[in-house]
Parts: sequence; structure tokens; C-alpha cells
Amino acid sequence: MSTIDNKELRVGMVGYAFMGAAHSQAWRTVNRAFDLPLRVRMAAVCGRDEAKVAEAADRLGWDGYVTDWRELIARDDIDVIDVCTPGDSHAEITIAALAAGKHVMCEKPLANNVAEAQAMVDAATAARESGIRTLCGFNYRRVPAAALMRQMIAAGRLGVIRHVRAVYLQDWITDPNFPLVWRLQQERAGSGALGDIGAHIIDLTQHITGQRITGVSALTETFVKERPIPTEMSGLAASSAADGQAYGQVTVDDAAVFTARLSGGAIATYEASRFAMGRKNGLRVEINGSLGSLVFDLERLNELEFYDATLPAAEQGFNRILVTEPEHPYLSAWWPPGHIIGYEHSFTHQARDFVQAVAEGTDPHPSFEEALGVQLVLDAVQRSAASGSTWTQVAQPQYAA
Amino acid sequence: MSTIDNKELRVGMVGYAFMGAAHSQAWRTVNRAFDLPLRVRMAAVCGRDEAKVAEAADRLGWDGYVTDWRELIARDDIDVIDVCTPGDSHAEITIAALAAGKHVMCEKPLANNVAEAQAMVDAATAARESGIRTLCGFNYRRVPAAALMRQMIAAGRLGVIRHVRAVYLQDWITDPNFPLVWRLQQERAGSGALGDIGAHIIDLTQHITGQRITGVSALTETFVKERPIPTEMSGLAASSAADGQAYGQVTVDDAAVFTARLSGGAIATYEASRFAMGRKNGLRVEINGSLGSLVFDLERLNELEFYDATLPAAEQGFNRILVTEPEHPYLSAWWPPGHIIGYEHSFTHQARDFVQAVAEGTDPHPSFEEALGVQLVLDAVQRSAASGSTWTQVAQPQYAA
Amino acid sequence: MSTIDNKELRVGMVGYAFMGAAHSQAWRTVNRAFDLPLRVRMAAVCGRDEAKVAEAADRLGWDGYVTDWRELIARDDIDVIDVCTPGDSHAEITIAALAAGKHVMCEKPLANNVAEAQAMVDAATAARESGIRTLCGFNYRRVPAAALMRQMIAAGRLGVIRHVRAVYLQDWITDPNFPLVWRLQQERAGSGALGDIGAHIIDLTQHITGQRITGVSALTETFVKERPIPTEMSGLAASSAADGQAYGQVTVDDAAVFTARLSGGAIATYEASRFAMGRKNGLRVEINGSLGSLVFDLERLNELEFYDATLPAAEQGFNRILVTEPEHPYLSAWWPPGHIIGYEHSFTHQARDFVQAVAEGTDPHPSFEEALGVQLVLDAVQRSAASGSTWTQVAQPQYAA
Amino acid sequence: MSTIDNKELRVGMVGYAFMGAAHSQAWRTVNRAFDLPLRVRMAAVCGRDEAKVAEAADRLGWDGYVTDWRELIARDDIDVIDVCTPGDSHAEITIAALAAGKHVMCEKPLANNVAEAQAMVDAATAARESGIRTLCGFNYRRVPAAALMRQMIAAGRLGVIRHVRAVYLQDWITDPNFPLVWRLQQERAGSGALGDIGAHIIDLTQHITGQRITGVSALTETFVKERPIPTEMSGLAASSAADGQAYGQVTVDDAAVFTARLSGGAIATYEASRFAMGRKNGLRVEINGSLGSLVFDLERLNELEFYDATLPAAEQGFNRILVTEPEHPYLSAWWPPGHIIGYEHSFTHQARDFVQAVAEGTDPHPSFEEALGVQLVLDAVQRSAASGSTWTQVAQPQYAA
Repeated sequence: MSTIDNKELRVGMVGYAFMGAAHSQAWRTVNRAFDLPLRVRMAAVCGRDEAKVAEAADRLGWDGYVTDWRELIARDDIDVIDVCTPGDSHAEITIAALAAGKHVMCEKPLANNVAEAQAMVDAATAARESGIRTLCGFNYRRVPAAALMRQMIAAGRLGVIRHVRAVYLQDWITDPNFPLVWRLQQERAGSGALGDIGAHIIDLTQHITGQRITGVSALTETFVKERPIPTEMSGLAASSAADGQAYGQVTVDDAAVFTARLSGGAIATYEASRFAMGRKNGLRVEINGSLGSLVFDLERLNELEFYDATLPAAEQGFNRILVTEPEHPYLSAWWPPGHIIGYEHSFTHQARDFVQAVAEGTDPHPSFEEALGVQLVLDAVQRSAASGSTWTQVAQPQYAA
Repeated sequence: MSTIDNKELRVGMVGYAFMGAAHSQAWRTVNRAFDLPLRVRMAAVCGRDEAKVAEAADRLGWDGYVTDWRELIARDDIDVIDVCTPGDSHAEITIAALAAGKHVMCEKPLANNVAEAQAMVDAATAARESGIRTLCGFNYRRVPAAALMRQMIAAGRLGVIRHVRAVYLQDWITDPNFPLVWRLQQERAGSGALGDIGAHIIDLTQHITGQRITGVSALTETFVKERPIPTEMSGLAASSAADGQAYGQVTVDDAAVFTARLSGGAIATYEASRFAMGRKNGLRVEINGSLGSLVFDLERLNELEFYDATLPAAEQGFNRILVTEPEHPYLSAWWPPGHIIGYEHSFTHQARDFVQAVAEGTDPHPSFEEALGVQLVLDAVQRSAASGSTWTQVAQPQYAA
Repeated sequence: MSTIDNKELRVGMVGYAFMGAAHSQAWRTVNRAFDLPLRVRMAAVCGRDEAKVAEAADRLGWDGYVTDWRELIARDDIDVIDVCTPGDSHAEITIAALAAGKHVMCEKPLANNVAEAQAMVDAATAARESGIRTLCGFNYRRVPAAALMRQMIAAGRLGVIRHVRAVYLQDWITDPNFPLVWRLQQERAGSGALGDIGAHIIDLTQHITGQRITGVSALTETFVKERPIPTEMSGLAASSAADGQAYGQVTVDDAAVFTARLSGGAIATYEASRFAMGRKNGLRVEINGSLGSLVFDLERLNELEFYDATLPAAEQGFNRILVTEPEHPYLSAWWPPGHIIGYEHSFTHQARDFVQAVAEGTDPHPSFEEALGVQLVLDAVQRSAASGSTWTQVAQPQYAA
Repeated sequence: MSTIDNKELRVGMVGYAFMGAAHSQAWRTVNRAFDLPLRVRMAAVCGRDEAKVAEAADRLGWDGYVTDWRELIARDDIDVIDVCTPGDSHAEITIAALAAGKHVMCEKPLANNVAEAQAMVDAATAARESGIRTLCGFNYRRVPAAALMRQMIAAGRLGVIRHVRAVYLQDWITDPNFPLVWRLQQERAGSGALGDIGAHIIDLTQHITGQRITGVSALTETFVKERPIPTEMSGLAASSAADGQAYGQVTVDDAAVFTARLSGGAIATYEASRFAMGRKNGLRVEINGSLGSLVFDLERLNELEFYDATLPAAEQGFNRILVTEPEHPYLSAWWPPGHIIGYEHSFTHQARDFVQAVAEGTDPHPSFEEALGVQLVLDAVQRSAASGSTWTQVAQPQYAA
């Protein structure tokens, strides 16, 4: 285990695509926005293609780069490994990093299946004995409006929760000629819309309600079953069209819908899709309770709608709270009221809480156990869908929400 | 069968509560707003309590009243029977009225179960031979924005439909002390939120997409299982609380959620609830297709959102169409653009189309067959919910959508 | 003066175009929706073209018709004259009707200029001695959300009012080939957008704030200065285009904007336009006070936004109140919560309050004095615009708001 | 003049409060998000209080700090001076920096009065001869939705512009006990809401329409005329309340409203206020043209509403464009569609365009001439307000918009 000297927290990141860019932004910014006991040093980024990773290191602000993640883990001038790779390498990298005494932040979903996730939990549990910290990157928990939802529900403002209604809708593969990228292959991504974006609404609703999904009945669909194989890809079984373009099987879901029950007695609907035309990053959660309701929409992430059924009858309504006040979670670090923040700020908030936890010697959230809980829901959804929507109980890991 | 003389269409209505008031409004208004071949005469209204029905007849504008629906049906100066009673009497009244040669408009859901609905279809089929017309009152089809949705989908503006997302949310029984009214008793209402409001979104989505629900997996819940018995009620098995207030079992669902597949390949989620705090008449339907999307919200029924994926990329968005132009369905009868209409107008439009069809000798929609189709979905939902959300095929009646 | 016998209030209406249709709807409906001490009888409608007025009487539900308004006034079986003609005949008809002892409801604006309006006030004042009632039809006061605004402000929910921001935007004459109808001629209409729709926001903001506009600085514009003369029109000075189509001068404003001060210390902006593309009936009023704000939009007339600055800081926001609860003004007469009403209902509410006032022997609002107040603002706006936006004091009639 | 070596652009910033933090963020981020020919070095920040500026330099990411802006200007390792001080020092610092051969980015409004602004223009004009670049920081031009507005109008999508409707509403001084900060003193700030936020909507509307305000009629108000003097302030004439708290005069406007004419024939209303309760950063601009309309709201800055009157009549509406597509201005540098950006990104975009212009040897926008144009409007507004809202022509500087 590295010793954190000099008030520095030295980070090594694996992967530098979309998530790598978002995380880099967070590491660069976190000490500018927040007063923290440790200063982040962006030590090195890792990628297999040397030219590309060198360019990325320079552009994203890393001190250096390596081309083998094992090398990154072996360095003793690195305290944290930030795993931003596709899901099929999460377990291997994370478990190795923990064994090397590194704190780990790992992107979501935790793994591509329950067995891998369980192995990661076991490794994190063992490492915790040595003061090693782990976090799974369900970053939307740190959108201020979502954090406020959790606060308000915990404070009893909704009373008994009756309904959860969650969708995460995108439309980026509606074109049947969109290519067969890694996110559309089961071996790489684990699942499709379900694990990529469905995992977010599973985690988010469990987090903000403080309840667990206990059972599901699910339906999944792959609308476009074959797609063009990108020329740089290989090793995929392919069919070939008249124009010479090779096509391969889409092996993940395009969309998943499921009904659910929550541990507190609520019933729920969930939907994740990449075929909802016009919905770009359409995560929307509505919670109805006996005293009120809350509605959140990620495309308007600075707003939260709150229906307060305890107000006088003539004045009840859906109150659009602009979540930019200093009283709101994380907001005192940013701009004056009404000056909105963006998607990327959720990563900065996540980095803040991670750095704070490491400095204080406490466990940050979402823990790997919580992330395993999400994985178990994903697994139940897939099993239900595979067996004609049969009601499927969700196994529950041990953790305090 | 009555002979329609003198260009008059003489209506007798059974029931004068919420639906009776809405229908009365429609019959009073239809010839004021629309130029029709027949003039409606509001001949008589029927109710069991003479004092109350006399008051209602006077207030709602009926020429007279009777206290026995059999008497209403027996009158030869009545051409149409309008059935606005609770669901448990729809079949008996309707079948008798058809046998007496009356045209029938019957409120939705058509019946309390499939057997009754089938019997009504059989009666309507027989009566059709004699030129007798029937319509089931799924009035939301005649909200102009909903009618426009159907037109646009039929014209191919959405391409291939991928997703249907429909909720009908209310909150009027969230208070556990709300009494055990007839809508909360299985014998009277057939089901709870499912048949009362879920039926509307089943019909509406089938109508606007031109597709059928082919299978479902459902979950229902009764959140408040006992409620105070209103003092005027009797004959219910009751338990008694410390304060002497008698309580009875709620025998219907408070909420129902289900996933579904449609005949054209789309997948869907449906939800009906009376416990969605803050949602008053929250019917919301979103349809996503390969070329665009449509979103409708009954609480803003003069608006329709249309995402047109064929526009230039930089100009695509959810276009809020204010459905008040003369080019929009039914609107040329009303006010200038921007002068909005209300909930009640859907009934006037329904009356218009009914009168027109009777005058022309054509069958109005929704036919009883279409309404039986809805009943079969309700039935499949209840069977699925009763058997652990098992996927349940929906039987299909014969009709042209 | 007629004696109101038999609990009937017999109405004669002059004019049967847009406003005539809206008023007819109100008279037909008012006793259906509200429990009132008098029953309205729609005795006769008046228009100059016999064929057209006969058709209108039949369609709109009047017992009969006449072709000379003097004849209408002379009838002793009529208690109320409802003036729905263009502004240039308001004064003559109203003053004659009052002299004949009729109650008068007169459409807005009260007159085409201050002198006429003053003469009408004088006539109303004299008639009041004999128990004759008068009302000027600023119907938007009776939109429930607007009535609720007034209630909330009167109850002090906004504290000291700082800002009034009012627009009434339409777009129906953006096409330069739209013909030179009467509303575009100064002699008939008095002014353009200013008097037609600007008058509404002047009245509405004075009514809901309980304050008066004390001074203005104004700017008016006529974007399209010549328009085609409709073939049925004559007597207008015309120029002639190459295609033989005769063109005439537009002699009213297309748009008017002005700043203002109110008697309670607020400052304000007002705008009325018929060239605001996409705004169909876009009356929008926002009031900011020291304790909160209110926002109303006529295209969503069932909603009212309320910002309550006395709530906890983290929960403040613009609360979208769906004004359909029984606790809201006029709503207990209509449908269950969430079942929205339309534009026309404001006229029904106006008729209700008029009938109630006549029955009780009290003066309904808006009084002619209040309407004269609006006329004086219109006059000040026109004078300011004619003199280079010079600040212009508004003369104040005597009345209690 | 410094020579830009080694592909570096070395920036020195004066002031480190709100604007300093926003600019620091932009300088830190610009090379991470955009591929630029020069790499920004954050050389030094300047402030008078050494302890505070040292802390700010460390927190905001500057290599060093100085306590005298003259020292900053004198350094030959600095290429750009970024002026983020209150308006009363803009002219002195900027003119000195230009004389020293530095490129200058100066916060808005350019100066506290026309004479200073003119002197700055003169200095910039002289410096331009030597290849020195200047920009005034009206950052909202670089909000992508605002940039898109300008593109669409320039492309003719709105046709002839008829109306401009612009408000910038805040509420941060509604509390009369809010202290007398520098922004409320005429000597420091020049004006109140007018220059602080009104300047933004003047610049933005002139920029997006490509037209100039040619005349105004204005009204200003100071609702709270005395405020508590913060203890650290001195040198202000003060009155003293019973509790010993000293009070001073507010010498700027709390709110300003004005009507205007634009060079292309449109008429306009403008409003700037710090007393609009509930509006936090409520910049809203609506433009109506003969072919369509555009609406922008800074509190939802990722969205743009577009009404396209050339669409089929039944499909026209206000289209909510989510301005997060790669086809939209600046967006290809950020996240996938639907992943929204925030307020701060406008500064990054401004920095990007400034760096690009310096590298290319072109003049960035807004030029000082354009900023002088805004100053001349502010001046006309103040003169009109001081003379009873008299119509006041706006002098026009020479520049190409």
C-alpha cells in the first residue's frame, strides 16, 4: 500500500475514452472547486495504443502514460487506480489493484456478471482491513438534485413511498446502420441498454429511496439484430451483405423494461432503451409517496420537481426547484444561484467525496457491495426476461444503504 | 326500433353522476358546435331516486325523467340509450336496449368481465343487422391531440413503432380514510385503477398506434386494504374500529403496472394508479418510432409534442404543437387558435361522431368489438397478476382498427 | 325597467360573431353548471342580416331574433342587453338600453375612446339609481387561475409588488395578404392590438394587483401599412395593385409596447402584438413581489405558477398549481381535479357572477368605471406614442377596485 | 509587445472574485476541450490583498501572483491581460496593458461611462496596428444556444424581425437588509441592474439579430434606497439607525425597463432587475420574425425553442431543441448528446475563440467597438430615464456586427 505523503493523492487511470475524459475533468477540477485535505496529482493514464494514450495524456492533463495496466498498478508513486475500461476488464484490473494496495474507483456497472462482481466485493472486503477504499462510479448520485431527493426522502418529506417510475432513454442506435461497437457485444459489455443505462436507474432509485428492489418481471428486446462490423474490428462471426460490408450479430438488448417491488412496499416500473427517438440522455425518475412526490429529469439536471401534499390544498403543485442554491448539495462550491452546472460536475462531486473519504479513512459510496446489489438486479432482470417474464426474486447482498 | 323522424335524435340516459353530467353537456352542445344532419333531443334521464333524478333532469337539461331504466327502453319516443351507470349494469341495460331497437352509447369499460363484454358484442352484432349502432365511450380518442396522434402515425410520421409508454395517474384515494365507495368494490366496478383508468390507456394506445397488445406481464397492488364504510352503504362485510366506524375490505387494485408487447413489434409499459400523489388526471402517452416520437399529456390536452427525426440534425427537438388550429381534428368548430378547450369537449366530439354515424348509417368507433379487445387485455392483466406476473397472451377479437 | 318575474332573466344579445358565440355558450350553460336564483332565458339575438341572424339564433340556441337593436331594447320581455358588437356601436346601444331600463353586459373595450366611455359611465351611474346593473366583459378576470392570483395577492402572499410584466401576443395578421377587416380600421375598432388585446392585460393586471397604472411611456407600430380590401367591403379609400386587388390603409397599430408605473410603487412593461409568430393567444402575466411571484399563461389557463419566498430556501421554486381543485375559484362547478376547462368557461363564470349580482341587487365587476379606467390607460398610451414616448399621466376615474 | 514563443499564450489576470474564478476555469480548461494552436499558461493573478491573492492563485491554478496590476503589465513573460475587476478600473488597466503591448480580454460592461469606453476603443484601435487583440467579455454570446440563434437568424430562418423581448431578472437584493456592496454604488459600478445584467441583453440581442438599438424610452427605479454599510467598507456618507448599524445611499438602479427600436424595423422591450423574486439568473430572449420565432432562457441554457412558420400548419409549434448535438456550436468538444453543459462553459468558449483569434492574427468579438455600442445604449437609457422617459436616440459607433 502506498503511503499518502505530502498531502497528495496520486491517481492512475486506466482507459481514456468517454469515461476517461469525464474522470480526467473531475480530477483536474476537484481541488479548484472544493477545499480538500488532499491535493490530487494526475500521475499517469494507461492505454494499449501508445500514440493515442500519449496524445490523451497530454490533452487530458496527465503527467505521464503507460501502455500496460499492470505497470500502472506496480508503480509505488500511485495511490489510486481509476478503472474506466469496458466492463469485461473491471474485475481483473480492480482485484489486482486492490492486491497491490491501491484505492480503487471503478466505473459502473461493477462487472459484467454477478460472479465477477462478487469476486470484486470479496477483494474489496479483504482490502478494507488494510484501509483501502473502493467506490463504484454511479455518478448520478452526485447530481445535486438527485442528492437532494435522497435528503428529502430521508427527512420524511414523501411519507410512505408508493411508486417508483424510472426510465433511462437514449436514441443513439436507432439507425440500423450504426456499427457493431463493443457496447453491442455481450462478451465486452455484459448487456446492452440494461447494464449501460438501466444500471444507473436501478442504483439511483435504490439510493434515493433507501430501499431495495426485491423482485422483478422483465422483458428485453433487440430491435436490430445484425449490424455492420466496423473495419477495425475482427474476430467476430460475420455475415456479409451484397455490398461487401460484413454484418455481425448484436448480442445484447436494445431495450429492457421491467416491473418491480421494493423492500418498502412500493411498486415500480423501469425502462432502459437506446431506441427512444428524441430522448438523448433521458433519465427520468418519479417517486410518489403518501405526503408528496419528486420528479427528476437528467436533461434538466439543475431542476427538481417537488409536490408537497402538506401545503394548503389551493397551493399544491409541482414545484420546480432550481437546484443552484448554496443550501443545495455541492452547490456552494460553484456559481451564484441560477448559474447552472452540467453533466460533468457529477464526476467532480464524486471525486470530491472519494478524496474526502480516503483522507478521513472512511468508506465512500457507492460501495462495491451496493454495486453488487445492482448487479444482482441486472442478473434477475436477465433471468426473468429469458424465462417468459417470470417473477424473479433478487438476491440481496449485505450493506447499509 | 324507433324511426328517426323530423331530423331528431331522441336520447335517453341512464345514470346522472360524473359521467351523466359529462354526457349531458355533450348532448346539449353538440348541435351548437357542429353542423349535423340530426338534432339531438334530450328526452329523459333515468335514476332510481326520484327526487335526485328530478333535480338532475332539471339541472342538466333533460325534458323529463324516469326511475326505471326498463321504462326508458320501452318508450318509443327514444332512439338512443346512453348508459352511464357503474360497470355491473352495463351488460343488462345495453342488451335490453339493443333488443328494443335502440342505438346504444355505453360508458367504458364495456363491462366488468369478458363474458359480459362478449355477450354485449353478440347483442351488438345481432342488432347491427337492423341498422342499430353501438359505441363504447372511450372519449379520450376524441381529444384533438390524441386524434392528431393517430393521424400522424397512420401517415407514417413515426416510422416503425418501437416503444409505447403509457401511464394514467391519479391521487384521489391516497388518504386511507377516503371511504369505501363503489369504485373500490370488485362486484360493482370489476376492478380498480385498472379498469377505471387503465382501460383508457389500453384503448388509446391501441387506437393511436393501430396495433394490439398481444401479451402482458402484470403486477397489481392494493396499498390500503380496509376503508371506512360510508353510512349510506350497507350489505358489506365490515370490521369495526374503536371509534365505531365500520371498515370494509377494498376488493380492487389501487394500482396496476404491466409490460406488454404490441402486434407491430413494439414493447410497452403501462401503469394505472390512484396513489400517484400530485397527479390529478395524469394520462401520459409517449410513442417512439424509427422516424420520430409523440408525447401527449391529458393535463395539457391542448398540446402535443412531436419529435421529427427527419428534420435537420441541428433543428430536431420536441415540438410543442398547440392543437387549436382549424387544421386540427374537431377544432374548426370551436374558437380561434390558442383559445383552448377542456376535458368536456372530448364528449361533445364523441357525441358528434355518434350522431353523424347514426345519421349516415355507419358504425361508430370504438365499436363494442374494440371495447371487448380492451376487456381482454384487462382480463389478461388480472390473470397475469394473479399468477406471479407470468407472461399472458391476450385473446384477440375480430375487428378492423 | 322590466320586472324579473318567475325567476327568469331574459337576455337579448346584439351581435353573433366570435363574441356572440362565446356569450351564447355562457348563457346556455350557466344554469347547468351553477345553482343560481335566476334562470336565464335566451330571448332573442339581433343582427342586421336576417338570413344570417336567423341561422345564428337557431344554431346558438336563441328563442328568436330581430334585425334592429332598437327593437330588441324596446321589448318588455327582455331584462338584459348583451352588447357583442364592434366597439364603435357600444356607446349608442348601451346608453339606449340603459335608458330603456335594461341591465347591460357590454364587451370590452368599453368604447372606442374616452368620451364615449365617459358617456357610458354617466348613463350607468344614472341607471344604477334605478337598480340597473352594468358589466364590461373583461372575461379573463374569471379564468380561475387569474381569480386565484387576485385572491393570493389580496391575502398578502406576494408582499409589496415590485414588477408587473404583461404581454398579450398573437400572430394572426403576420401574413401581409391578410385582408383589411374591421379590426384593422380605426373608425370601427378604435385601435388595433392595443384596444383589442392590450386592454385585457391592462384590466387584468389592475384587477389582480388592486393597483392602477398611473403613467405610461409608449411606442406603437404598424408593420404592414396597406392590406387587401375584402370584396364585400366598401367605402374605404383604396389604392389598387397591378393584379386589380384594391388595397387600403391599415389605420390601427399592429403592436404596442409601453412601460408604466403602478399606484403601489411597482414598475411595469406591457406589450400587445398581432405579429408575434407562434403566439396564438399568448397572454402572459408575471407579478414579482417582496414575498413571492405569480405567473399566468392563458395558453395554459388551468395552471398558475407561484414562487413562495417564505418556504425553506432549499425548497423554493416556481410551483405549478393545477387550478382544478374544488378549493379554487369557480372549480367546484365543474369536473374532478385534473380535468381541465377551456377558454369558454371564463364567459360562463362571468355570466354566473352577472346573474348573481342582478339577483342580489349588487353591482357586478368590472364596472363601467373600471372599464373607463382601462380606456384612460389606452388613451394615455396612444397620446404617449403620438408624442415620442413622452411620459404621460393617466387620469383616474373614481371606483373601488 | 511580447513575442509568443513556444506555442504558449501566457495570461495574467487582474481580480479573482466571481469573474476571476469563472475566467480561471476557462483558462484551465480551454486546451483540454479544444485543439488550439496555442497552449495557455496561467502565469499570474493580481490582487491587492497578498494573503487572499496567494490563496486564490493556489486554488484557481495560477503559477504565481502579484499585488500591483502595473507589475503584472510590466512583466515580459505575459502576453494577455485579463481584466476581471469592477468597472471603475477597466479603462485604466486596459489602456495601460495595451500600451505595454498586451492583448486584453476585459469583462463587461466595457467601462462605467461612454467617455472611458471611447478612450478604450481608441487605445484598442491604436494597438490593433501592432497586432494587439482585444475582446470584451459578453460571454453569453458563446452559450451554444445563443450562438445557434445568431446562426439561424443570419440564415434567414426568422425572416423579417418584428419583435425583440428581452429580460434579465435576478432577485438577490430583494432583502432590504442586504448590504451596500460595491455593485450598489454608482462610483464603482457605473449603474445597477442596468449595466450589470441589462448590458448582457443589450449585447446579446444586438449580436443575435445583427441589428442595433437606435432609440430608447426608459424608466429606472431604486426600490430600496438605503442599505446597511458592510463593516469593512468606509468612506461612504452614512446615516445611522437606532441599532447602531450605519446605512448608506444606494446610488444605482435596482431595476430598469425600456422600450426600443432596432435598426431593422423591430420594436423591443428590455428589462433588467434584481428584484424579480424567484428569478435567479433569468435571462430570457424572444425574437419574433415573419417566418418564425426563437426563445432562449439562460436558466435552461442547453435548450432553444424554435417556432418554424414554414412547417405544415398542423405541425407548427415551439420546438424545444436540446442544444447538445455535435452539429451545434462548440458542442463537439464536450459530451455525447443530451449530456448538458453549464454556465461556466460559455467562458471556456470565449477563451477558445480569443486564443484562436490571437493565434490567427484576427480580431475576436465582441470588439471594444461593439462594447462601446452597448455603452452608448446604457447611456441613452440613463439619459431617457433622467428626463421623463423621453425618446432618446442612440449614437452609433462604427463596426461590422
